[in-house]
Amino acid sequence: EVQQTAKAEVSLSLDVAFVLFSAYLVFGPMQLGFALLCAGAIRSKNSMNVLMKNILDACTGAIGFYLFGYAFAFGHEAKKSSNGFIGNWNFALSFTTKESSLSNVLEFDDDFPDEGWHSWFFQFSLCAIATTIVSGAVAERCTFGAYLAYSFFISAFVYPVVAHWVWSPDGWLSAFNTYVGGRYALILRSGAIDFAGAGVVHVTGGMAALMGAWIIGPRIGRFDASGKVNEIKGHSATLVVMGTFLMWFGYYGFAPGANLSVATADAAVVVSRVAVTTTLSAASAGLTTLFLRYAMSSTWDTVLVCNGCLGGLVAITAGCAVVEPWAAVLCGSAAALVFVGSDYLLLYKLKIDDPVSAVSMHLFCGLWGLFFPGLLAKPQYMADVYGDDGLADSVKAAGKYGILYGGHGQVLLCQLIEAVAICLWVGLMMGTFFYVFKAAKRLRVPVDQELAGQDVTKEGVEPYDGAGGSVGPQQGVGTTAAFGPGATVTTSAFYSNGEGEEGVSGGYATND
Amino acid sequence: EVQQTAKAEVSLSLDVAFVLFSAYLVFGPMQLGFALLCAGAIRSKNSMNVLMKNILDACTGAIGFYLFGYAFAFGHEAKKSSNGFIGNWNFALSFTTKESSLSNVLEFDDDFPDEGWHSWFFQFSLCAIATTIVSGAVAERCTFGAYLAYSFFISAFVYPVVAHWVWSPDGWLSAFNTYVGGRYALILRSGAIDFAGAGVVHVTGGMAALMGAWIIGPRIGRFDASGKVNEIKGHSATLVVMGTFLMWFGYYGFAPGANLSVATADAAVVVSRVAVTTTLSAASAGLTTLFLRYAMSSTWDTVLVCNGCLGGLVAITAGCAVVEPWAAVLCGSAAALVFVGSDYLLLYKLKIDDPVSAVSMHLFCGLWGLFFPGLLAKPQYMADVYGDDGLADSVKAAGKYGILYGGHGQVLLCQLIEAVAICLWVGLMMGTFFYVFKAAKRLRVPVDQELAGQDVTKEGVEPYDGAGGSVGPQQGVGTTAAFGPGATVTTSAFYSNGEGEEGVSGGYATND
Amino acid sequence: EVQQTAKAEVSLSLDVAFVLFSAYLVFGPMQLGFALLCAGAIRSKNSMNVLMKNILDACTGAIGFYLFGYAFAFGHEAKKSSNGFIGNWNFALSFTTKESSLSNVLEFDDDFPDEGWHSWFFQFSLCAIATTIVSGAVAERCTFGAYLAYSFFISAFVYPVVAHWVWSPDGWLSAFNTYVGGRYALILRSGAIDFAGAGVVHVTGGMAALMGAWIIGPRIGRFDASGKVNEIKGHSATLVVMGTFLMWFGYYGFAPGANLSVATADAAVVVSRVAVTTTLSAASAGLTTLFLRYAMSSTWDTVLVCNGCLGGLVAITAGCAVVEPWAAVLCGSAAALVFVGSDYLLLYKLKIDDPVSAVSMHLFCGLWGLFFPGLLAKPQYMADVYGDDGLADSVKAAGKYGILYGGHGQVLLCQLIEAVAICLWVGLMMGTFFYVFKAAKRLRVPVDQELAGQDVTKEGVEPYDGAGGSVGPQQGVGTTAAFGPGATVTTSAFYSNGEGEEGVSGGYATND
Repeated sequence: EVQQTAKAEVSLSLDVAFVLFSAYLVFGPMQLGFALLCAGAIRSKNSMNVLMKNILDACTGAIGFYLFGYAFAFGHEAKKSSNGFIGNWNFALSFTTKESSLSNVLEFDDDFPDEGWHSWFFQFSLCAIATTIVSGAVAERCTFGAYLAYSFFISAFVYPVVAHWVWSPDGWLSAFNTYVGGRYALILRSGAIDFAGAGVVHVTGGMAALMGAWIIGPRIGRFDASGKVNEIKGHSATLVVMGTFLMWFGYYGFAPGANLSVATADAAVVVSRVAVTTTLSAASAGLTTLFLRYAMSSTWDTVLVCNGCLGGLVAITAGCAVVEPWAAVLCGSAAALVFVGSDYLLLYKLKIDDPVSAVSMHLFCGLWGLFFPGLLAKPQYMADVYGDDGLADSVKAAGKYGILYGGHGQVLLCQLIEAVAICLWVGLMMGTFFYVFKAAKRLRVPVDQELAGQDVTKEGVEPYDGAGGSVGPQQGVGTTAAFGPGATVTTSAFYSNGEGEEGVSGGYATND
Repeated sequence: EVQQTAKAEVSLSLDVAFVLFSAYLVFGPMQLGFALLCAGAIRSKNSMNVLMKNILDACTGAIGFYLFGYAFAFGHEAKKSSNGFIGNWNFALSFTTKESSLSNVLEFDDDFPDEGWHSWFFQFSLCAIATTIVSGAVAERCTFGAYLAYSFFISAFVYPVVAHWVWSPDGWLSAFNTYVGGRYALILRSGAIDFAGAGVVHVTGGMAALMGAWIIGPRIGRFDASGKVNEIKGHSATLVVMGTFLMWFGYYGFAPGANLSVATADAAVVVSRVAVTTTLSAASAGLTTLFLRYAMSSTWDTVLVCNGCLGGLVAITAGCAVVEPWAAVLCGSAAALVFVGSDYLLLYKLKIDDPVSAVSMHLFCGLWGLFFPGLLAKPQYMADVYGDDGLADSVKAAGKYGILYGGHGQVLLCQLIEAVAICLWVGLMMGTFFYVFKAAKRLRVPVDQELAGQDVTKEGVEPYDGAGGSVGPQQGVGTTAAFGPGATVTTSAFYSNGEGEEGVSGGYATND
Repeated sequence: EVQQTAKAEVSLSLDVAFVLFSAYLVFGPMQLGFALLCAGAIRSKNSMNVLMKNILDACTGAIGFYLFGYAFAFGHEAKKSSNGFIGNWNFALSFTTKESSLSNVLEFDDDFPDEGWHSWFFQFSLCAIATTIVSGAVAERCTFGAYLAYSFFISAFVYPVVAHWVWSPDGWLSAFNTYVGGRYALILRSGAIDFAGAGVVHVTGGMAALMGAWIIGPRIGRFDASGKVNEIKGHSATLVVMGTFLMWFGYYGFAPGANLSVATADAAVVVSRVAVTTTLSAASAGLTTLFLRYAMSSTWDTVLVCNGCLGGLVAITAGCAVVEPWAAVLCGSAAALVFVGSDYLLLYKLKIDDPVSAVSMHLFCGLWGLFFPGLLAKPQYMADVYGDDGLADSVKAAGKYGILYGGHGQVLLCQLIEAVAICLWVGLMMGTFFYVFKAAKRLRVPVDQELAGQDVTKEGVEPYDGAGGSVGPQQGVGTTAAFGPGATVTTSAFYSNGEGEEGVSGGYATND
């Protein structure tokens, strides 16, 4: 009895440390990576503005998730369920703060992960990632006030509801809702397989980004009178590359950390497998974009490769724990195609101006990733990860795995349901939000401010490379998407530092 | 018996791993963050110089702390005490190096944390932070030789003595000095509550920074003949933002790591709580500076927000383990006010030129943070963290908690004693040090070198943005502190890259 | 029995977490650090090109190491040996993917570390470091296709063979080959002492870099007609400093992580000791370069100090677990001399153009480091680390430690054998590789491309600081190596941003 407690205590402690350090990687390098990626991919005249938004959505998100978000996502009274739609307990950590030690918590048994301080911190770090996805999509034209309100709204309410659906034991889509005979049994006897949040984090953030970019409209000069796409150069590919490395680094907190435990043999295997599949998906996606680009235009494109790697990371997020390494390679390669295709579609067909390709990366690669376990979740791994409590056999018996392994299709259907539900919910919420702000004329900065750059106006900031003078000429030049019709210049060719290049129309790319 | 050992062994190993990885975060991202923050906040002509100082104080500190510092801070012979003022054993790790395994160490029981290799590394990482605080305050004018001597002196002697007082079981201010009947019982039956070193690290470093900045005097052109403050532009707000993110990331090693253990249920809760309070304090401080600035001048100021977040981190350092989340929010908000107020005071009233606001951030926010647990340390949490060995009840009985919870005031008094003691000790030591170097004319670079920039002279370095030609015009322009009288420009408005903007007098900030 | 399993499980889990987080530090900050170091140390016109190569060798390496490399390095059928030269099992993780839980693995007992997912990830991260060492040495002139082929070849075959020799229990050089009576008993009853890969990683990568830089030939303008060395400026010392900090940070994953275990008392002590010796070697190497440089030219040289710190890290890699702290200080100081001396030798005597000093840092400091434990491995520590399975006494009896402690010399001889074997193997393999590509005219970019910069040609990238116009004048100016004859300018003095400095002949360094 005593020994058992001792063992449980050190195991719990190991899990707490594992969750915390994973969260540090998400909140640290991954958040910074996002900020640098955004800052580098836009014009220098707005880079400080977007950096500040990336810091502040972490701040706003922390307060919003502390007061409301965590309770909406995971809160339920001890020994009771909340409901399938939204949590209802532990606002402002009112319950968590009462614990004097884990021993109190141990009595809650399975509820522990939802009430602990470390759990708040990890879930907050994911929430902050979902929140920050939008900053790049509305960059260079969104007001500061609207962005602050947005980040509070999504952190405190919109994202937590989605997290509740999929990850709370009470959620209607949850794969962990195992209360046999309870109100919320597993949907389709499966639940959605979204290990680290391809849907919860990336589709949520990506859909919000789509709403934002669509409703706020394109930057001035992005399309000419006839609708033709004009190139707008980012200002620092070095920052983009640095951001990519940091996000990849941080992803090892994001994806393996989502297991929330490492202290059993099974958990350690799952966590390790996730690190491997994550790596292989990112690597194959990067190589696919490289060769695809080279096949089409005989040039090597650094920034496209960066985006490819990140698309591969996003796509593996749902299935990372339940697919084979070779499947991860497939997942990443396909994600590269999804990224390139959707990026083209959004800019050239839908005429949506998303300066950092946030929508193609997070929404479209996220959707592809969400479907992926429906195709290639391995039976044995599904039993390992989603077959707890003696359900392992039932997983195999029920055909609860990828259809390409002969699964019965319920997993794929659950994934589809999650995808549709999130898109509808976030589209409705954030669409309304951005529409209201637009109608109230609080969404977009005035034309003169947009032309001059936000750094030198609303923020009172003169950016670090004196972009004040480089405003006019950088606009209306060239084309942007990597595979646009008649695009003689690559995406990366747009990267300049905004100095001494006014009027240059993307003539730097030669194909030889 | 055997089982017990097995349990103790894996718990010890977990603690060692926890301490090491926490130290990595302090030595890695936090140290780099400091370097980037300093480099970005000064003129490009001196950026290489300050980067080198930040690398070298880590090198010098490592040697100094290895030879002397660790022994002065924590050394005491086995089963014996040293004394209340200074440690006296294990110089050059002479004892630590004799251990062949932890089993030897286990016999020392409670002494283990003070003798292990991992403990040296963690304590060194904190020492290096205290040391590096000064580099920004004396930037752009301090000689290299004086800085090297300073960093050795503080690492090998001044900082270790403070650490001994507060954190060694022998220290006269220590809250862990529980030798009932021993020579150094708890001062005021409480000891100072300085969990991660608001006093030990930040007040020490901040006070040294104040002495340095004051004695070395302002940069040429910082004040005009009549004493009016002139603006001196930093050169890269991007580096400042990057540094802020990295320091925030590293703080999760600094503050939760200070528990030195995670392997019991109680320890895991404390560590997790620290991560949460740290996050909330930083977030609320960042938002407070944002809105305060906006209320006063209708501009958003990125660099001020960065400083705010960092001020919030500093302020929560003492109380992070013993305050409620809402108290952490309060602590951070107030820290923002302390930062802004002290920054104004130092520059406009005391005419002290601290290029990176190190004094306001570390000394003043550190002092505020040191007092904070005297106000709002929660009884239950105090019993958890400082009531070991069956003293939990006595904590509550003795009113050993924040006065706003009805505490008897002894905690607040201990905090005040720590503050005064550190300021006197560091002020005396470092004041003498800098004064002697000044008298010997070894403290400050010659006027021509200061005007030309240290990167192009003493270091033989041409900085990366060719600042050699931008010296003259960048001086004597505008005003700096965020809330200075007649300041028409924000702090951040000073950030330029030093190219092509000579003679521009901060006219970039518009308020609309 | 049950208790024992419980204990083993949490210990294994702790080890898995330890290995994973160590690998994250290697793959994250260390890989990024390399990229930034390379990018900063070359001309801006090629910086994007080298950044892309650094991303892609991680991608290519992941695929190559997944398909072949890991099997060649560590693969052997269960309960059987492979052979002394190369592994032969678990291609494409075919065995690893079959495990449903660690419990299967536990049956393999000692084989576990070689088959687990986490082990793949850690070993891959080391492989990626060895691979990326070459990118800087062939920077500014190597074609993309050749580099991709190189990175696949070394990751999939050349490096894994070396890793097998030294680290696999079957390897002919391995210090862990303890099969008494087996075919591959310990060579010289010792095996090579290469704890974290001074030989396996750094000499391998450094030797490949030497072959690459030698066979591809110097950059245009590096030497004039008479063979005199011309200065070629790097473009960002800030990136170099940032890269140095990040690599130092990542080294705490690389070196302590190489123990692969932390969950016993002995392991925890070894891991902690490695963190300490690593720190002290880097610190003393940095200080040594600082003072050496100052003694010779009265200037402080930031970039040289950075290289010194990194040389100190490389040199301690082999012996970090078995030397005293004071020995680590010696090791680092000597490494600084080795670095400076070999850098001079390579450039001025051998006329090899290695833009980032990769050969002096990794090959020469690596060789010095490899010999070091032959000199100063402490008997007691050798018994701790390499005396498992009751061999501790035999270590001491056999004189299996440094000759300066009275060792019998077999360790030093093993180190020498490893050094020669690796240099021959890698020299032959990579020499042939680069020679074939050169003969096929696929190794080097055309002259016009090299002059124009790869970023603006093959990659279709315009680098972030518009270097297109700064090509001609930056060449043929000044001298480079820190201690070259008649060098009036320091290494660091070459750092410019490539703008507005055309024609300036390194006149920025003054010695006063």
